Amino acid sequence: MRTQAVIIGAGPAGLLLGHILHRAGIGFTILEARSREYVLGRIRAGVLEQSSVDVLAELGLDADLREHGLTHHGIHLQFEGARHHLDFVELVGRTVSIYGQQALVRHLLAEHERLGSDIRFEVSDVTPTGLEGSDPTVSFTDGGATTTIAGDVVVGADGFHGVCRPAIPGIRAFERSFPFGWLGILADVPPSTDDLIYALHPDGFAMHSMRSPEVSRLYVQVRHDESIDDWSDARIWDALQTRLGVDGWTLQEGEVLEKSITPMRSFVASTMSHGRLFLVGDAGHIVPPTGAKGLNSAIADVVLLGRAIIAGLQHGDESGLSGYSAAALARQWKVQQFSEWMTDLLHVHDAPDASAREFAYRSQVGRLEYVTGSRAARQSLAEQYAGLPFTTE
Amino acid sequence: MRTQAVIIGAGPAGLLLGHILHRAGIGFTILEARSREYVLGRIRAGVLEQSSVDVLAELGLDADLREHGLTHHGIHLQFEGARHHLDFVELVGRTVSIYGQQALVRHLLAEHERLGSDIRFEVSDVTPTGLEGSDPTVSFTDGGATTTIAGDVVVGADGFHGVCRPAIPGIRAFERSFPFGWLGILADVPPSTDDLIYALHPDGFAMHSMRSPEVSRLYVQVRHDESIDDWSDARIWDALQTRLGVDGWTLQEGEVLEKSITPMRSFVASTMSHGRLFLVGDAGHIVPPTGAKGLNSAIADVVLLGRAIIAGLQHGDESGLSGYSAAALARQWKVQQFSEWMTDLLHVHDAPDASAREFAYRSQVGRLEYVTGSRAARQSLAEQYAGLPFTTE
Repeated sequence: MRTQAVIIGAGPAGLLLGHILHRAGIGFTILEARSREYVLGRIRAGVLEQSSVDVLAELGLDADLREHGLTHHGIHLQFEGARHHLDFVELVGRTVSIYGQQALVRHLLAEHERLGSDIRFEVSDVTPTGLEGSDPTVSFTDGGATTTIAGDVVVGADGFHGVCRPAIPGIRAFERSFPFGWLGILADVPPSTDDLIYALHPDGFAMHSMRSPEVSRLYVQVRHDESIDDWSDARIWDALQTRLGVDGWTLQEGEVLEKSITPMRSFVASTMSHGRLFLVGDAGHIVPPTGAKGLNSAIADVVLLGRAIIAGLQHGDESGLSGYSAAALARQWKVQQFSEWMTDLLHVHDAPDASAREFAYRSQVGRLEYVTGSRAARQSLAEQYAGLPFTTE
Repeated sequence: MRTQAVIIGAGPAGLLLGHILHRAGIGFTILEARSREYVLGRIRAGVLEQSSVDVLAELGLDADLREHGLTHHGIHLQFEGARHHLDFVELVGRTVSIYGQQALVRHLLAEHERLGSDIRFEVSDVTPTGLEGSDPTVSFTDGGATTTIAGDVVVGADGFHGVCRPAIPGIRAFERSFPFGWLGILADVPPSTDDLIYALHPDGFAMHSMRSPEVSRLYVQVRHDESIDDWSDARIWDALQTRLGVDGWTLQEGEVLEKSITPMRSFVASTMSHGRLFLVGDAGHIVPPTGAKGLNSAIADVVLLGRAIIAGLQHGDESGLSGYSAAALARQWKVQQFSEWMTDLLHVHDAPDASAREFAYRSQVGRLEYVTGSRAARQSLAEQYAGLPFTTE
């Protein structure tokens, strides 16, 4: 078997890259270890930067987003019992859209199925080889039979636990782990807020988001080693009421549809490519969710790599491919530092003693006072939250 | 003995407050534990915010500053072998001035001596009492005799190790200590730069500053427990050449006139007042020197307290005095978070392992890339470095 691009992973990054290559007339096959149902059922990110929305619109992939996405003009920052609105439109002329990754995957996959794209679910033993040469191959097992596909490029869109990153010899990991995580719930109740609320409270971070006009998404900071069993629905609502409460506002409660604890980690690989293998999204980097950057970074990688593949395969210009890793990482480190900054700013931190803990908290409040009071600082936050440019030329 | 304000400490804060009170016709006595020569010989900060310069000009205390101060229009940020200039004038319409604290103290003291102000050096056993009532007193020993002065207010301008902060019952300290310090030298060589250079290098922070057009002031990050004896002049110049070096630029070396290691600490007291006692400057808070905020914060406190004392003692309006601590602390926490941000951004940090150390360094580089590339972020840094407004109304 032979194609032009072998894409490993049918998450949003792999599926979107397939659409970009399809429009350019480049052949591809997508290999996915999980089942179609599993891929469709995965709940992940929910905030799209305007640049991400623009990419979907350019590709004609925004019909569902236009119907079901919620355009947000800013966020609320809350601390010391007061809520402050940051108006991204007024500050930087941009918006963000609330649109679940699950909905995006469903739409991208439906469009691929309409096009008859070659997507293989539930394949196993996926193994990229010959990456250093001009003719890489990927072997895999599908329904008992072992197959090998040759291509011009192999794309690792297979997530943090995928096989592609470990296939790069000598690759290193740069990591920061956080001693806390997010306990998140989906609740069957209309959101009690217009724009998202990010709150620093002495008990810990809390956030009010939404999945749709009918379903709320809420989070509280918990220790990284806490068990979900210790958090009854009543305890979760109690924590949310305490941390999100402000005078004159009511947090509406509803049935908890699901709940889980997500650990938080910052991770960046030392390279995003090796020979003819190119990593995109979580295969190359992970951010803590505070800045809502995971999915958007994956889309930024895909746009950059898509252009590079088209230039290389159709125009014989290899510069984009050879420069891909450096360009993607340069952008990603800016995203990492923003996600880290938002995370540090809004979470309660452990410290060697009470004096240092209190110092950290009050310094965070000082920073929030400064940010909410300074137009330049609000603009800086807004331009990063609403999304840095997709390329770094 | 009776006066209106008893000021403890003849550093820049105490001396400046004396001038403010003098102009309003309010009587004061300044008590200083050290000798006149010691006070005049102390070398400390060297950067004045424009607001600080404006205060000195308003008080007619800027003659020496105008003659010997060096107006700087920005700073250089250096990382990954490249130097980036931030132009404060273009960004926020403000400048900073290089003017040693030593020169400021010399000028303020000379002006007091011209006015015949009551300043007592080398007093001991300074003890404020009766702070809760309307008639506080300060007793002290001067040349063997014990004296008591009564006043309307007592001002603790006696620095971090002074007697005033400990005189406040139940006061708490919020602190962060850093595992590194600055090794600083004064060198007998004209500065090799126009504006100050702040450099992040894998070996650690370095800074090129100046004392005058003839004398350079240079710093390198060292571990907090290092001995100055381990740093020969040759080793210091070698570290400076490595950390500050960029293509096409030469760091001129000269005789090392003095060298010392300064530990770094963030410290804020839980209150800046108790009854009729009011703290200003280092008595209430310490910042790491990276943002050049120590002296400027003291001046901001003094301006705020000066107004409050004048309103209270001359117009019977106590609101400024009763609100002083909250207002001074609200401003100070913004200054603290900026100093902490600059310090974290530019120093090499310890971490549990090599991956986390590398993550921290690359995230700092990402932040520097973002800051130098974003006008909003440059403005945010500039407005904080050049100085937040002196009052927080």
